[in-house]
Parts: sequence; structure tokens; C-alpha cells
Amino acid sequence: MASSSQVQAHLQAVEALKAKEAAFRYDHAALSNMTADEARANTIFTRLRDAEVLSTWEKQGDLVAFAGMDFYGARKNGLGQPSEVWNAVQRMPKGALLHCHFDGTVDTKFLLEHAKKTPGMAMKTDVPLSTPESLWKATVEFLVLPEGAERSKTSIYSEEYLPGTWVSFSHARESFPYPHPYSLEPRAQPNGDTTHRAASSDSGLAFDAYAHALMTLTPHSAVPAITNSKQAWAKFQSTFGVIAGLIGYEPTLKAYTKELLRSHARDGISYTETRINFLTEFMVRQDGTPDLDHEAWVRIFIEAVNEVKSEITDGSFVDAKIIYTTVRFVDNERLRWYLEDCIMLKKKFPEWIVGFDLVGHEDPLLPLKVYIPELLRFQQRCKEEGVEIPFVFHAGETLEDGGDADLNLYDALLLGTKRIGHGVSLARHPILTDMVKERDICLEICPISNQVLGYTSSICSHPSLLALLNRNVPVALSSDDPSIFENFGLSYDFYQLVISSKATSLVSLAALARRSIKYTLVDEATKQRMFQDWDARWTAFLAWFLQEYGHVAKQ
Amino acid sequence: MASSSQVQAHLQAVEALKAKEAAFRYDHAALSNMTADEARANTIFTRLRDAEVLSTWEKQGDLVAFAGMDFYGARKNGLGQPSEVWNAVQRMPKGALLHCHFDGTVDTKFLLEHAKKTPGMAMKTDVPLSTPESLWKATVEFLVLPEGAERSKTSIYSEEYLPGTWVSFSHARESFPYPHPYSLEPRAQPNGDTTHRAASSDSGLAFDAYAHALMTLTPHSAVPAITNSKQAWAKFQSTFGVIAGLIGYEPTLKAYTKELLRSHARDGISYTETRINFLTEFMVRQDGTPDLDHEAWVRIFIEAVNEVKSEITDGSFVDAKIIYTTVRFVDNERLRWYLEDCIMLKKKFPEWIVGFDLVGHEDPLLPLKVYIPELLRFQQRCKEEGVEIPFVFHAGETLEDGGDADLNLYDALLLGTKRIGHGVSLARHPILTDMVKERDICLEICPISNQVLGYTSSICSHPSLLALLNRNVPVALSSDDPSIFENFGLSYDFYQLVISSKATSLVSLAALARRSIKYTLVDEATKQRMFQDWDARWTAFLAWFLQEYGHVAKQ
Repeated sequence: MASSSQVQAHLQAVEALKAKEAAFRYDHAALSNMTADEARANTIFTRLRDAEVLSTWEKQGDLVAFAGMDFYGARKNGLGQPSEVWNAVQRMPKGALLHCHFDGTVDTKFLLEHAKKTPGMAMKTDVPLSTPESLWKATVEFLVLPEGAERSKTSIYSEEYLPGTWVSFSHARESFPYPHPYSLEPRAQPNGDTTHRAASSDSGLAFDAYAHALMTLTPHSAVPAITNSKQAWAKFQSTFGVIAGLIGYEPTLKAYTKELLRSHARDGISYTETRINFLTEFMVRQDGTPDLDHEAWVRIFIEAVNEVKSEITDGSFVDAKIIYTTVRFVDNERLRWYLEDCIMLKKKFPEWIVGFDLVGHEDPLLPLKVYIPELLRFQQRCKEEGVEIPFVFHAGETLEDGGDADLNLYDALLLGTKRIGHGVSLARHPILTDMVKERDICLEICPISNQVLGYTSSICSHPSLLALLNRNVPVALSSDDPSIFENFGLSYDFYQLVISSKATSLVSLAALARRSIKYTLVDEATKQRMFQDWDARWTAFLAWFLQEYGHVAKQ
Repeated sequence: MASSSQVQAHLQAVEALKAKEAAFRYDHAALSNMTADEARANTIFTRLRDAEVLSTWEKQGDLVAFAGMDFYGARKNGLGQPSEVWNAVQRMPKGALLHCHFDGTVDTKFLLEHAKKTPGMAMKTDVPLSTPESLWKATVEFLVLPEGAERSKTSIYSEEYLPGTWVSFSHARESFPYPHPYSLEPRAQPNGDTTHRAASSDSGLAFDAYAHALMTLTPHSAVPAITNSKQAWAKFQSTFGVIAGLIGYEPTLKAYTKELLRSHARDGISYTETRINFLTEFMVRQDGTPDLDHEAWVRIFIEAVNEVKSEITDGSFVDAKIIYTTVRFVDNERLRWYLEDCIMLKKKFPEWIVGFDLVGHEDPLLPLKVYIPELLRFQQRCKEEGVEIPFVFHAGETLEDGGDADLNLYDALLLGTKRIGHGVSLARHPILTDMVKERDICLEICPISNQVLGYTSSICSHPSLLALLNRNVPVALSSDDPSIFENFGLSYDFYQLVISSKATSLVSLAALARRSIKYTLVDEATKQRMFQDWDARWTAFLAWFLQEYGHVAKQ
């Protein structure tokens, strides 16, 4: 045996090295300055987490589940069911949600409920839905038509249906002829909740399950399985076309916006910066006229947010702002139109438009470098108009190494982006990583989205998440398109991180949540209000947590 | 529009930033000092690579294949078939292979051919192979028995077979009663090669295909599919038990060692440091006596290597050395036995034993910290005995963040490891990454192994490979267990990297290959001989490449 002093020296050197790395991390300050309650809660939480890993994710002999596994596998294994860790994660205050696409945020079942109550709602497809196979090949669209607008009487499910003609939504729903070819994969639902399944043979419910399958990536037994990033993106993109006609209707838009705030508040999120895709120029007015312009949308958004705010009686903070976005396939001429539109909206609603971004699948679409002239001109135009509209670019949402999509990171940084959407490939760029850290640019990392869309097989093997967290590059966990992936709110992403990373504790999650506020695009005074609000919620959460689980400390 | 000078300034800033990052990379010096031939070959190769990406991996409308996709998917899509990029990659000199496990290196078909020629070869299982299902549940073992040893006459395929009794290998092979329940998934084999399929109904060939399935992770239609790391490891570990009895026989051992060198030479590898697992104390002598000790194994290894070297008439370099390993489940007392055994062998064969390592699945097995006292004692003992046996530890072959397996990296580094096997989790440790770079410690990264064993879904999303390459942390691509994964040699790993990374060129691969020599554990004079040999091979390769593909430059 080596002398015990040699062994001691080695163990001390290991501890010193671990401490040196820990001092680098985002949670170091928080862990170094814990209150007594925080320290107690943190110990208890870690104990509960370690126990839950063993009881739910790493069961002896189970070769399927593992902590941090793919999202849909994890859902089947119980992710989202009540558990000590889930309850705590769901209840904790999560600060700001910095990356979610407006039309991919609120549960699609909410949209369906509204569609059912909208008499003018119509439906069309590009092929008759006359066979079970056609259900998954068709491009399905919805739209609210003006009163008296003509609708075909031919069933959309008959071979005689003329592709592209509108039929009544309610008729199509009630006459849905396929009972259960598309039933959802069975899920553990210990509380007997069957809302996700077409449990009854009722046509309406069967239709709802079909529409749900069209609007989500959640695996269904009848839908072709997704096995890679290309297939995931193809399906993902198709969902937006289905959602568009349901959401783009004045009354639904307002209700949806309110539900976005409310559902986020229920998940402990107090502030959301949502990216609205303004690609479409007009939505549909209450009376069915399709001429509701961008200015009117923003007014509806503001009304909705203000109405929810006015409901708040306990003084807690709730708010949402808009990041203006269009898509990376427009040409420069068209981009200029959007940039001017964005400036116009910013001047009209200076508090509400907080940034500009270009969205879409980075690999096949146009790289930022194509848009440099217009994006530089925009910065000049903003100066002329006396407005500040920071860029908040998607960049590095790719597995490419050195291709155009990977190079978007360079352009985004040199264009002065305030934050980076995704940055999956950032950690492989040493100079850019340092630059991001020096410039205090926050990465909006969306772990579940990245996994579902094929950039990583699990949260544990994410090419950048843990690498950046451990370097204390600013990261805000985000949900991206939670209605489409069904990772609503932030609880799923927070849970997957803390359950799969022993280095992450309750206080780590709190540090992440609180820090998200720092990177919001609001004024300093508002940020301070948000911090105060978060601190109060955190104190209340700790009290609840210690009351609920304090006994664990004694076990 | 922004002024063209502003646009110019932006584009220049992007180029400057790209150059700054490129200057960090491992291939910077090589790319900055290209000869005219290298520059020409590099341009042509990149053109061929980009064309092959489009024609084979990123075909319009194909939602399945992609460049850098999972290894078995890539094999089905043609990886390993002749193509411009494959031919060049296969033919180029690859320097040293620093990480492969001896018993997982040579094609299992080679072992089967030897088993067929070994009269004493016997077989046993723990359940009768009386049903098709039993084939995949059974633990199958082989062993050469001494002449005259008793063998059961009962068929191993009958319900009467007494589990654990030895039967004749040749009889079991020839009477294999299952024609094709386990046929390999069809592969594109344009040259009509059907060696991987049980194409004939002949029992022997069918048995061979079964044995192949037992010894590899290659997907077979009848074998339960592997969908995660746990399942992959379970299957992976089972293969070694099947292989053990085939390889652990004096004449086979020698032939196998020779084939290891020869097959590596055919793939452009001139030197191999192979990890031999000395866990088993004895192998089987030519006459069937099971008392061939470690000293005798090493003698056989040396004889085999020297015989292959003596065949070399053109002066080219070929060699192999041994890294002594045992497995991370032995206790400290037992570990001391192996460490002393290692010292004994090093003293007897000072040129041949070049390092020590502990192997096995890091997540469930014992962490290095458990072995600290014995490992420190070993370093003292080496001093006393006047030998140098560097540690070359496996570490960070895990997706854990902060768990024991992840912490192996700290212990390995502080024990002074000369290289790191895998280091999948290294890039998430900023201080350790810097330390590895400062200490010039080479990472033996095994991209295909890491993907097959579930640490990443594709080479492109590997948590450390590109991050470390781009930081110029020393990396040597390695094959790990190529006979079990069937990524023989280094061509598959090199191909997957260069086909999926636009930032990687032919000269990048050459820089990687040449640098591997620097991190071998031989004396300086031998290294210099290897470098000279590599340089000569590279010159010859360039001449061949330019003759073969020079016309591409003119297209």
C-alpha cells in the first residue's frame, strides 16, 4: 500500500481540482452563499433526486429507461407524473422564458376547443381523407371563413372530395369516420386521465386525437415513426401549417395569448419573451374578414397581456413581450419590408417589441451572411428612427462543423446579437465561446427541443449544454415550441437537467432561473422588479418545500 | 442598403474571426505549410468529399441518410463500399492506433476459421439451444479441450442437452438446425460478396452467421434491437465471453496476433498499442492443457510480431506493443496481484509492455478513486524495480455529469495518466480540458465505438470530439473494439469524420494521423523512425492520389 499521507495528498489534490472547476460554474456564487433554509432544502432535494433516479430511471435490471433519456421515452416512463422532484421543479419560480415561438406554445387542445366554438371554422386538404393512409399524407389546413362563404357539401372523407375546397370544420369533426387507427401510444396515466387518448369511439374525440397528432411530434402508433433530425424537422414544419388557421383568428388569438401567460404563470414562469412569426401579413378578423394586419395583432397581444395583468391581485409579476421574427427563406427585398414593418411596430409599441430574429431550419435555409446588407441597414435605420431593436438571433442550431449553418454564429456575434437562440454547436468554437462569455451573451438552450429535433440523443450528450454551463457561459433553459413537443412551460426541461446531472442541485436550478431575468430585454427598473418578485417567490417556495419534505432531512 | 464599405467591414471581421479560430486548430500548421502537391490534393479531395456527401449521404428527398449518421445505418447506406473518399481514406497512412482491445480487434470470421481447424474445440451453453428464442438467451462458450477429454454426445439443440456440458464444436456447427432465423439484415453488396449472410441453407454457414451475431453488435433481423447505451453494453459485454474460448488457444493466439498486424498494415496503420486484458490467468496450450501463463502469452505475442516484421521487405515500419489491463471490478487485493504481474512482465519484456490501464464499463463498475492506494503503491514499486510503466487510463467514457464515472477524469489526471481512453465527457470540464492541453495528454477518442455504445447518436453530436479538435487538445482517432463493432482498422472512423465535418480536409486527417505517432509510448528514436516512415508513405499516397484523381482539378 502507498503511505496514507500519499493517498491523502492525492485525495486532497482531487478535491482542490474539483473545487477549482466548481468555482467556474454558474451556481458557484449561489452555492457559496446559501441561507440556512436553502442549504437544508438543497440537501433534502438532492436526497429526493438521487432516490427518484434509482426508483424511476435507473431501476435494477431495466435496460430501457435512464435519467435524462429521450423526452418521449421519458414521458412513457412517467415524466410529468407527480413525484417529489417533479412537484418541486414544477412549483419553483423559473424566472423568464426567453425562447418560445408564439404559435408553438399553448397546448393544441386549447386551440381545438376554440375551433369547436367557432362557427365559421373550415377545413381543407390536398387529398381526400378517404383512406387511413391518406390521413398522414394529407396537408391539412384550417381557416375561419366569412359568414355566408361557400363550403363544399361533399365529405372530406369521400373519394369525391375535390382537393383544396373548404368544408365545415364541425361537420368534418363530427363525421370523422376513423375510430382509432391513430390511437396514441399508451401512457402511464395513474390518475386515470385519458385526455390524450381517443378512448371513446365518438367521432369528435377521434378527430381531436387526429388533429392533435397533426399538430404535435408526440409519437402515435399510426403515425410513421421519426428516427432522425430530417424526419423530425419535416414533421415539425408541417405542424405550423395546421396550427396557423386555428390560431390566426382574432378572438382565438386573444384567448391564446391570455392562456400563454396563465399557463406559464401556473408553471412558475413570470415573464415570457415570445417570438412572433410575422411572415403572414394578415390574420382573420372576428367577422371572418382576412385583413387583420400586424399592428392589429400587436394590439390584441397587448390587450390580452394587460387583461391578465389586471387579474393579478397578489402583486406578483407577470408579463410578456414580443420578439419580431420572419423566416430565413425570404429574399433581401422582402426582408427589408419586414425590417421596416418591425421598426414601424416598435415606434407604435415601444415597450412591446423588444428584439428581432430570423427563424427556421438553419441547415437547409439561408445563412445570415446572405442578409448582411439589409441587417446592417436596419441598424442604421433604427438609429435614424431613434429606436433600439436588438438582434436576438437563432444561431448554431446545427450539427454541421464548418458549414454555413455553423457559421451563422460568427455573423450573429459580429452583428451584435444580444442573445443566441440554441447555439447547439457553440461549444466546439473556443474563440466564440470566450467571446460569448466576455460579452455576457446568453444562450437560450432548449434541451428537449434539441433532442426531439435530433441534435442529441439525450440531454446528457448535448454537444453544448453541460459544456457551457460548466464554463459559466450564460445559459437560459427554454422550451422552444412546447405545444408541438408537449414540454409545456419549463418544468420538463428543468426536470430532465436535474434528474440527469448529479452536479445540478435545487439551488443550481434556482440560480439558472434567477439569472434568466438578467438577460431579458426590458429596462433596468423592470428587471429589478422581476428580481424582487422572484426572490419573494423563492422564499415562499422554500417554506413550502421545507414544510412538505422537511421530514426527509431526519431520515 | 448598408454601404458597401460597412458590408465589407463585416465580412472582413467574420473572416478575421474565422481565421483566429482556425489558428487554434490541430490542422493549422499543416494547412499553413502545404507543399504544392498537398495543396492540390487537398482541393481535389474536398471537391470529391463534397460531391460524395451530396450523392450518397444528403440525397434530395432522402429523409434517412445523413453524413455522419449512426454507423450501422451508414453501413446499410454504403459506408465501406468503394468510393472516391473511401478509397483515399483507406489508402492514406494513418500512423498509430493507440486504443484497441486485443480480443476485440481482428475480424471474428478469422477466429471461426481457426475454430473449424481445431479438433479439440468444444462448445457449451447454459440452456439447450432447442428453440429459435433460446439462441439469443443462451450464454455460449467455446474452449479447446485436451485430447481425449469427454464430450457429451447429446445434441446441444435437443431438450435433453444438459446445460454446461461440453459438446464437439464441429458437430454442433455441422448439425446446426436453424436455417435462417437470424439472417443478417440485407446489405448493399454490389460486388456480390455474401460472406456476411447465411446465403446458403448449409448448416455450417448458418452456424457461422449465428456465431458472428453472438460476437458482434452488427444488427441482425432476429436479434433483439439495441436502442440505448445499457442494452448496447449488455450485448457488448456478452461478446467477450464468446470470443474468449476461441482466441485463448496457443496456435490461434499467435495467428490472431499476426493477423492483427497484417490487417492493420492493409488499412495503413503502421503501429498498434493494443490493450491486452490479463484478467484470465491462463490460456490453453497447443495440446489442450489450460496452463499457458501470462509470460507465455507475451512470448507468443512477441514471436508473432517479430515474424510479421521479418516478412517486411520494403523497409516499411510495422510494430505493436502491449498495454497491460485488468478490469474495474477486481478488489484492491486482486489488483495488487495484477500490478505485480505487470511489473514482472515489464522486467522480462521491457520493450513490449508500454503501459497499464483498467478497463470496463465505467458507469456501473468501480471508480478509480477506489484503487488509489494500490495505484500509488504501484508507482513506488516501479521506482524500486527501476521500470517505467505509465498509466494510460480509460476515463470519462460516460454521460454522467458529476458522478463517479465522470470523476474518473480527475483521478486519472492526478495519477499522471499519459493518455486518456475516450474522455467523452472531457469537454464539459473547462479546467481539466486546459490541463490536458497544457500537459500534452492525448485523448484516444473512438467515435464509432462511442456512437454504437450510446454516448452520442452520431459523430456530429459527439460531446467532445469536435470541441476538443477545435481547441487543439491532442486527439487520436481510435477503433476500440473493431471486431465487435466491425469498424475494422481506422478507415471507418476517419471516413465518418471527414464526410460529416466540412472543417476537416484530407490534410486535416493527415495531421491527425501523423500526430498519433507523437503520443505512442516508445522511445524517441523509434518515434523518429515512425515519422520518417509516415512521411514516405504520405508522399507515395499523394503521388497515387494525384495520379488517380488529378483530372478532377481540371473539371
